[in-house]
Amino acid sequence: MSDFRDDAAAASEWVAQYLEGVRELPVLAQVEPGQIRAALPDSPPDRPEPFSAVLDDLDRILLPGITHWNHPRFFAYFAISGSEPGILAEYLTAALNVNAMLWRTSPAATELEEVAVDWVRQLLDLPEGFHGHIEDTASTSTLAALTAARHLRPDGSILCSEHAHSSMDKSARLLGMPLRKIATDGGRRMRMDSLAEALRDGKPAAVVATVGTTSTSAVDPLAEIAALAAEAGAWLHVDAAYAGSAMVCEENRWAFTGVERADSLVVNPHKWLLTPIDCSLLYTRRSEVLREAFSIAPVYLRASEEGVTNLTDYGPALGRRFRALKLWAVIRCYGRDGLQSVIREHQRLARLFASWVEETPGWEVVAPVPFSLVCFRREGSDEENEAILERVNGTGEVFLSNTVLDGRYVLRLAVGNHGTTEDDVRRAWELLQEA
Amino acid sequence: MSDFRDDAAAASEWVAQYLEGVRELPVLAQVEPGQIRAALPDSPPDRPEPFSAVLDDLDRILLPGITHWNHPRFFAYFAISGSEPGILAEYLTAALNVNAMLWRTSPAATELEEVAVDWVRQLLDLPEGFHGHIEDTASTSTLAALTAARHLRPDGSILCSEHAHSSMDKSARLLGMPLRKIATDGGRRMRMDSLAEALRDGKPAAVVATVGTTSTSAVDPLAEIAALAAEAGAWLHVDAAYAGSAMVCEENRWAFTGVERADSLVVNPHKWLLTPIDCSLLYTRRSEVLREAFSIAPVYLRASEEGVTNLTDYGPALGRRFRALKLWAVIRCYGRDGLQSVIREHQRLARLFASWVEETPGWEVVAPVPFSLVCFRREGSDEENEAILERVNGTGEVFLSNTVLDGRYVLRLAVGNHGTTEDDVRRAWELLQEA
Repeated sequence: MSDFRDDAAAASEWVAQYLEGVRELPVLAQVEPGQIRAALPDSPPDRPEPFSAVLDDLDRILLPGITHWNHPRFFAYFAISGSEPGILAEYLTAALNVNAMLWRTSPAATELEEVAVDWVRQLLDLPEGFHGHIEDTASTSTLAALTAARHLRPDGSILCSEHAHSSMDKSARLLGMPLRKIATDGGRRMRMDSLAEALRDGKPAAVVATVGTTSTSAVDPLAEIAALAAEAGAWLHVDAAYAGSAMVCEENRWAFTGVERADSLVVNPHKWLLTPIDCSLLYTRRSEVLREAFSIAPVYLRASEEGVTNLTDYGPALGRRFRALKLWAVIRCYGRDGLQSVIREHQRLARLFASWVEETPGWEVVAPVPFSLVCFRREGSDEENEAILERVNGTGEVFLSNTVLDGRYVLRLAVGNHGTTEDDVRRAWELLQEA
Repeated sequence: MSDFRDDAAAASEWVAQYLEGVRELPVLAQVEPGQIRAALPDSPPDRPEPFSAVLDDLDRILLPGITHWNHPRFFAYFAISGSEPGILAEYLTAALNVNAMLWRTSPAATELEEVAVDWVRQLLDLPEGFHGHIEDTASTSTLAALTAARHLRPDGSILCSEHAHSSMDKSARLLGMPLRKIATDGGRRMRMDSLAEALRDGKPAAVVATVGTTSTSAVDPLAEIAALAAEAGAWLHVDAAYAGSAMVCEENRWAFTGVERADSLVVNPHKWLLTPIDCSLLYTRRSEVLREAFSIAPVYLRASEEGVTNLTDYGPALGRRFRALKLWAVIRCYGRDGLQSVIREHQRLARLFASWVEETPGWEVVAPVPFSLVCFRREGSDEENEAILERVNGTGEVFLSNTVLDGRYVLRLAVGNHGTTEDDVRRAWELLQEA
């Protein structure tokens, strides 16, 4: 155990120096395909090596090939944070190494999950009837929700915005459900006339509303969709994987108007609530349907369980990591106030960046900025915009991503790392202008 | 960052003391349903709390409700190990917080995954053509494999032993595939006459062979199943989630005779290869089928990727944690020799325990012991055996689980924790005899 204490101290020092020094590293890995692989031995060692050798090779071989998601100048996709309490809680989780598949296999893991997920429900001002549990990613949460929808209407289809996340395509394919994409309006929000028409034409099992689309963070009109879905007897799933966390702040809750009518809702604390991946919350008003759809235990067995919850009955996997510990640690160490401050600062920085783009001739903001994502472009061809992005990302100083809107190449800057400052956003803007 | 260093030191000290002291804790949590929940605040805090408060409450509130999977006297289900290099690597992973969805989103994460998974392929003496990647659990790996099988034969069924894992039922339900359970012989191995008959009768998409069933660790006759599956044009999936790791030792490889004909194979290093959960390896000889089944990118986009692998194209989830780091750390810090020693010692202890049971009047071993699981019972009624188990588990000194074989209640002792000694197994046997 003295060895462990030494190794643990070295690991802690590595993490501390990484968090201190990550700013100095290139955000986007500047390596060629196969370069890291070529630097690693082809075969496993026969004899044990010390943990220090792992740390050495992490620095020497792997780090140049890491794209640093936990970097204050990571502005791509949706930017995320592995916060300090979250990191340390993952460490504890690995030491405990419990499998929370059944209540009995670690009662505290199941009950803390229920508590932590309910804390987030309160932070987001969701109704009391929403029962939640943790899945790994939104892909799995959405798959679980749509499985419940199919359980109620086995030959029904899924309707979602053309801007819905790609996990809808994957889920529909897995579940063998037809998927119909609904056209969007100028604000990339699902068109209600198109949805109404699609609902009339088909046999809908589920309608998916997105609060914060991947491309532009657009918000589908939830209340109107809820009314139409209810009329059609379809399950309403709300994908708020990214933007759901913003509901910690009252001023963002306009985007959740109507959410109380959702049958299911996904919010990922590993996106914008400072929790290391993976941690995706699936809430539902109809947990009994999820249970019916997933539980493979016969009814007479379930009845004998005396009021305990076996969370494996609510999703596709049997084994379950103790993910609640990190969520609970993050909420406690930030508190409601701290979480609100982080979200508000990210929104302020995104709006500030958008204002610089708007004020600058030759540049334009091409979508509203409801949260912390700015979609913009330079006047000119797609090729010029792509070249700008490649030059900027090639500096290693910042990392932005792109999307395509109305057939045009568009740049995306997403603020979401807890270490991001106004200087970081300003530097991104300088680099873009120089490029 | 000085705060982080202090908090990290406290977390490390907590982990060190936990690993040192876990032996003294009751293995099976001795709490009532709702007891942990009741001790936790109903609502999240408004103000930040120090990380030390999290550690205090972990000790004070949560630990009594933890069933200690990382305990040397955890003999239930399949016993597992969160080994020291695995624990520390999870800590590093949380700090890096990368998402390995695409090669580009962290090239080193994808390439290390390819290397580490190939190292395990070599350790298990699998053919070179097997391409692997990491999923969270065997439930997901099996779902992915069966999705590939369905892709080739969309209206086909799944055939597996009546002793196959419950994830077959979940996968079949998710995928909308008929599932047919094949009868087993006296050794709980799939009966070849029954399988041949079922293959003739139906339109099989997949045959699942289990190497190490959950109930008794029985080994289906892989080579014969492979021949029958090939004849029927069905996908052969091998579930070796538990026992696959034992193939690190040559003397166990009889159980993998014929494995080279498998279309897919699942092995969980988080079960018996010292890796903290979650880490499930899915190998396939036909990775192009998995990719066809899962990739939602159009073909022309894939062609432009210049030989890089995007591992999200091989499974249901888009987001992917950097799980390869812990697997790599474990292999390096144990080496082939170290892994073999652990597996051999576990098998020795299981056989020793079985010999004690066999030598003792009034007790019987009720299934062969090919790996590290012993199924046994006391002569007498099911109620007596159940009462013995409850008394033994109620001491908190050990934790065993049970199964049902031929309608009879059977006790299971699984050896799989890296800290388990002969004394631990002897103590389990003393407690069983006293009970």
